[in-house]
Amino acid sequence: MNAEIIAVGSEMLTPHRVDTNSLYLTEQLNLLGVDVIFKSIVGDDMRRMVAAAQHGLFRSDIIIVSGGLGPTEDDLTREAIAEALGVGLRRDPEIVAKLEQRFAQRGWKMTPNNAKQADVLEGATVLPNPNGTASGQWLSGQFEGRERIVVLLPGPPHEMKALFESEVRERLREKVPPAHLFTRTLKIAMLGESAVDARVAPIYKRFSDVETTILAGAGEIELHFKTRAATLEQAQERADEVAGLVEDELDDAVYSRNGESLEQIVGYWLQMRNATVAVAESCTGGLLAERITSISGSSRYFLGGAVVYSNNLKTEFAGVPADMIERYGAVSREVAAALAEGIRYRCESTFGVGITGVAGPGGGSVEKPVGLVYHAVASDSGTEVIQRNFPGDRKRIRRFASTMALDMIRKKLM
Amino acid sequence: MNAEIIAVGSEMLTPHRVDTNSLYLTEQLNLLGVDVIFKSIVGDDMRRMVAAAQHGLFRSDIIIVSGGLGPTEDDLTREAIAEALGVGLRRDPEIVAKLEQRFAQRGWKMTPNNAKQADVLEGATVLPNPNGTASGQWLSGQFEGRERIVVLLPGPPHEMKALFESEVRERLREKVPPAHLFTRTLKIAMLGESAVDARVAPIYKRFSDVETTILAGAGEIELHFKTRAATLEQAQERADEVAGLVEDELDDAVYSRNGESLEQIVGYWLQMRNATVAVAESCTGGLLAERITSISGSSRYFLGGAVVYSNNLKTEFAGVPADMIERYGAVSREVAAALAEGIRYRCESTFGVGITGVAGPGGGSVEKPVGLVYHAVASDSGTEVIQRNFPGDRKRIRRFASTMALDMIRKKLM
Repeated sequence: MNAEIIAVGSEMLTPHRVDTNSLYLTEQLNLLGVDVIFKSIVGDDMRRMVAAAQHGLFRSDIIIVSGGLGPTEDDLTREAIAEALGVGLRRDPEIVAKLEQRFAQRGWKMTPNNAKQADVLEGATVLPNPNGTASGQWLSGQFEGRERIVVLLPGPPHEMKALFESEVRERLREKVPPAHLFTRTLKIAMLGESAVDARVAPIYKRFSDVETTILAGAGEIELHFKTRAATLEQAQERADEVAGLVEDELDDAVYSRNGESLEQIVGYWLQMRNATVAVAESCTGGLLAERITSISGSSRYFLGGAVVYSNNLKTEFAGVPADMIERYGAVSREVAAALAEGIRYRCESTFGVGITGVAGPGGGSVEKPVGLVYHAVASDSGTEVIQRNFPGDRKRIRRFASTMALDMIRKKLM
Repeated sequence: MNAEIIAVGSEMLTPHRVDTNSLYLTEQLNLLGVDVIFKSIVGDDMRRMVAAAQHGLFRSDIIIVSGGLGPTEDDLTREAIAEALGVGLRRDPEIVAKLEQRFAQRGWKMTPNNAKQADVLEGATVLPNPNGTASGQWLSGQFEGRERIVVLLPGPPHEMKALFESEVRERLREKVPPAHLFTRTLKIAMLGESAVDARVAPIYKRFSDVETTILAGAGEIELHFKTRAATLEQAQERADEVAGLVEDELDDAVYSRNGESLEQIVGYWLQMRNATVAVAESCTGGLLAERITSISGSSRYFLGGAVVYSNNLKTEFAGVPADMIERYGAVSREVAAALAEGIRYRCESTFGVGITGVAGPGGGSVEKPVGLVYHAVASDSGTEVIQRNFPGDRKRIRRFASTMALDMIRKKLM
């Protein structure tokens, strides 16, 4: 079975809004074994909404419409779908009473326009919305000789998701032929996308029944292996077969196989080893500390750190000798190591991390170009420094550098 | 005139990819006075692509299709649009020669599948792509008695944008009736969305010819006033009329009227006043430093700071007396002030900032619930501390707190 998603609302046709509801819905539909074949975004315009719904009814088994269920004049989804299906709308007195009650509870009187939220498509089931006034609707039946399912959901993401979970998922599962999908995700740090693909494509191409997707960010790559089978066990077994071979090939570059972020993995390892970390950052300006502390509970292993933008503070907070900075420059292997060692000493942490580099766009030179970063990790067993030249803009270079540092900590803990 | 945008590619129908090309295209079309009335995303499927294009030709004056122009079997945009329009494709020998040359330059032999990138719609103008092998195409003329413009653009955003700018914008400007659009953007810090709307709606509702949009983030709100007129001056004058009244109403909560970010504005002010800043962060974990240093050139006014997660480091780096932490707790008005004063003293900066709070989800109590944050700014004229209780999750609370701190610095500089 296939599905399409129609997002309704003129605000979704501005340069400022992106339709994220359909990503959640696609994920949920895929889990049920349903492919999404078309997505559209239509403004609050009766004629165009009717046309979009009719095209959808022609094309797809399942049509999910989100948005346009509110009380204002612009909210036309109920009317448009009724017209596209050629069915009537009836006003449900029970919903009207609930709406009135909801207003009364807040000490308000319901304005008449709100009553349109009680209009229900002929033959539809009302899906109560615990988080808002706009109910969803479910309609399943024949349309021009074809079996069709039409679902209306509210537009605000938290209302849409809650309603899908409580009212729609099980209804769909009953209608859709059983298929079990499983996705195994491998996350990989500090390898290039084309390098990874060159190494693993010969493996995953042998599994034509596994859908492989590669997503690349700055310094992080995700490999998704999606399988479909009669049972969940079979699906998982097949996905893990290819994932296992890929892990063997990429070895310790794979840092996660259950969706955990690099920040989480580093946190797990630090806790498991009873270790702590402190950081001294120059070009990343606090990004590494911010990423480590984005994890709840990170106070158990993250002691703190220093953002040492000025040379003075490199000395003051991390004890980097002023004459070392003078001699080698602030962006140097020596200063990176001294930052790591100094902050480790000051914070009495298991690991000390130092980062210094040129994030750009200004400040580069022939010898020390934009993108040059030194990363150092100091521990009992000495100090490791890695130099890299990252591509991209300031934001990307800073992201790369912080990922590199996280990955260096990870590898010391394994 | 109106337009619609069709994004082509099965990868755009997965839960992992969102169509961002259409945001750029919408912005560019709006600037030319063209409204976008419909957007769709279709997979690499000939039949569905033809149908989507036909619906578009029926509905919209301008149809922009992005993606599906590459050399693989899946790249079907040229064939589908030719079928939808009922025109033929001719293989352009000049493009074939250029493709062969491009491959030869890299020392490769062109594989035969690449030649399909030289297929041109009958009557179309080829739009050379400086950043890739897939050319764009422009076709303007009658279709079933209606004047239509069809533009094919490559899918990769940097290729699409470069091609739009070099080849499409001016061609569209010649075809579209002249209309001048102007958007004035006001950015507002640390006021709630509904509070702002309640204060400014009575103003902007009097300007029915001005399109007002409100966008809200954690602690930051944007108000967009969009106008359309015969000349740019007239459009700007009208937008600035409503924006001026709104600024009078919101007073110094408005921090920017030309699109600048809060980080940029704080940077401008610090440079203008020849002032410097240093920060001591607990619950924001480096986010404030990261935001300040996201601006290129921030080393001129940002000296550095400390991320003081452990109580020890609050004393070590920012000189907060251990007995003060003992007495009032790490999350307290007193410790926030001491962090700000201590880091200012240590870094010899004009301003010192201290932040301490409960970002959650754990660590909250009845007296000090999740979301409670103390923000302090110390300067020559004393130390100000502001307490807030922020809603939302860890990420949102940290964002709110860092915005609050930036806004406190801004207000001290005005």
